[in-house]
Amino acid sequence: MQEMIRVAVDAMGGDYAPAEMVKGVIDAVTLRQDIKVYLVGRKDAVEKELKKRSYSGSQIEVIHAEEVIETAEPPVMAIRKKKQSSIVMGMNMVKEKKADAFVSAGSSGAILVGGQVIVGRIKGVERPPLAPLIPTEKGVSLLIDCGANVDARASHLVQFAKMGSIYMENVLGVKNPKVAIVNIGAEEEKGNALVKETFPLLKNCPDVNFVGSIEAREIPHGQADVIVCEAFVGNVILKLYEGLSGTLVGVIKQGMMQSLKSKIGALLVKPSLKKTLKTFDATEYGGAPLLGLNGLVVKTHGSAKAKEVTNSIIQCVTFKEQEINEKIRKNIGTSPMEE
Amino acid sequence: MQEMIRVAVDAMGGDYAPAEMVKGVIDAVTLRQDIKVYLVGRKDAVEKELKKRSYSGSQIEVIHAEEVIETAEPPVMAIRKKKQSSIVMGMNMVKEKKADAFVSAGSSGAILVGGQVIVGRIKGVERPPLAPLIPTEKGVSLLIDCGANVDARASHLVQFAKMGSIYMENVLGVKNPKVAIVNIGAEEEKGNALVKETFPLLKNCPDVNFVGSIEAREIPHGQADVIVCEAFVGNVILKLYEGLSGTLVGVIKQGMMQSLKSKIGALLVKPSLKKTLKTFDATEYGGAPLLGLNGLVVKTHGSAKAKEVTNSIIQCVTFKEQEINEKIRKNIGTSPMEE
Repeated sequence: MQEMIRVAVDAMGGDYAPAEMVKGVIDAVTLRQDIKVYLVGRKDAVEKELKKRSYSGSQIEVIHAEEVIETAEPPVMAIRKKKQSSIVMGMNMVKEKKADAFVSAGSSGAILVGGQVIVGRIKGVERPPLAPLIPTEKGVSLLIDCGANVDARASHLVQFAKMGSIYMENVLGVKNPKVAIVNIGAEEEKGNALVKETFPLLKNCPDVNFVGSIEAREIPHGQADVIVCEAFVGNVILKLYEGLSGTLVGVIKQGMMQSLKSKIGALLVKPSLKKTLKTFDATEYGGAPLLGLNGLVVKTHGSAKAKEVTNSIIQCVTFKEQEINEKIRKNIGTSPMEE
Repeated sequence: MQEMIRVAVDAMGGDYAPAEMVKGVIDAVTLRQDIKVYLVGRKDAVEKELKKRSYSGSQIEVIHAEEVIETAEPPVMAIRKKKQSSIVMGMNMVKEKKADAFVSAGSSGAILVGGQVIVGRIKGVERPPLAPLIPTEKGVSLLIDCGANVDARASHLVQFAKMGSIYMENVLGVKNPKVAIVNIGAEEEKGNALVKETFPLLKNCPDVNFVGSIEAREIPHGQADVIVCEAFVGNVILKLYEGLSGTLVGVIKQGMMQSLKSKIGALLVKPSLKKTLKTFDATEYGGAPLLGLNGLVVKTHGSAKAKEVTNSIIQCVTFKEQEINEKIRKNIGTSPMEE
């Protein structure tokens, strides 16, 4: 019998929970027979959604979680106090090896804290980075770290580069992924203290195909597969990416609605445009993994709909099949920096 | 007789120098009779461009500068060695009060170094920030600092907030400008060490209308007039803004060219779209001032064309008329932090 990949999904997190979560889960188990999903959340609410559609009953199991962690709650306190929340219970399943992965669209802070505190780090990993894929002209790049661990050290960034390379090579299938560090100029002597300290370490790191600095202007052109930065800068890049894309598309739509002539034009360009803009839609690529944990935790957008949930679950399968954590364990464990 | 505003313009800096610089200068003096421009650069090249058009001869004077600082040159060395360069000569004119302002599309590094070393800081100003205007849904915001001075301290950021407020209020005419600090969450307890230290200082600063944190996602929505950050983060925001806008517009154009139907549509939407996207074009708003100097230095984009040069020169007039430097001197001088 084929081994099942077991994914716990937070049914209660995100703007469209539980409806879109449940829909995404059903789509995922319909696509692949080797997935078993544990839907963690309020049983009545989840079952109400499940009843709306047909699916393979043996592939979905509801795990009742009485509590929900809200986005505004202070994360550390929420993780400590709400033992019966979907996030804490889902993460405990990963910790206890009852699930291979946990997917949530809930509170970023709680997911980042819970990942470290409940699931725990792989031995040798100093910090687990949050690594979303961002769309570029050429496909996608992994932006690592966008998490909550600000004020990083150079050794953290080197580990991010290694873990990011393993992920891009094995989950996305990018051979010998190009790694760049976010900088304010292309030259080696540019940058702040952290970048200046990290640059030579990456340059001399045998496990990483380091191509040097990348200016923020070049990121959308897709010239690097793994984009290394500390979390504050990563968060700014990720959020500006999302905000500016949304604003520009809005401005363009508005522009097209200004006259009768342009409205007719808009109808004609719409199908082609929709296809093109889809490549710039982050939700197509699933959620962001929190790397370096004893198990997999995936954070999707708070605004995730069914498609992103489905893609995130499929992503967990590849992660497990490709034995990413074993590779990280081996790579970080044998790192000269760790000895 | 009306007092003339004297602006030295680097005729040799930028991708389209000297042609577009000269064109921009001629447009500026044609628009306003109270401007006198010193075109600093290679006399033969500049005069060749000047001969192509007619203009008020008394308003433009060519100052011969034998040397040119190239973009790739190490800035400190270039400023020290190339005494006959257009940048060094133009800045010396500001220092010696022979010009009120200097506008250049040349090497950012050399302009930032030259501003500090040649023109010099206003007494009490710890660091002169580079403060470009970025387009938003509502108009523009001042992004301060995008310069070369990374690893800033909290006291620097407070000064940026003050100088930025004075600039937005007096040059852009924004009453009681809203000041926000770039952060990775809206709550006061979020952020890196620098932001956490700066937040209460801004909150308690009587000269600043501080509205709290701004996430990068919100920047394009124009919810703050002055956006305070340290230079590394500012540089990332500015360059990603430019890069992503360009990429998205390119992707959209490409999308519109995919079929005959969409091509016809593109022709129909083009006029309306062009007008809308213009509001998102940074070159409409002139260059970025380097604030807090004993005189004004304005850095335009390297890719600046005539229009941006003209707008930057007009910007210098408002700066002088509104006595921005006197206001900065007074405000920073009386700051409790400086005593």
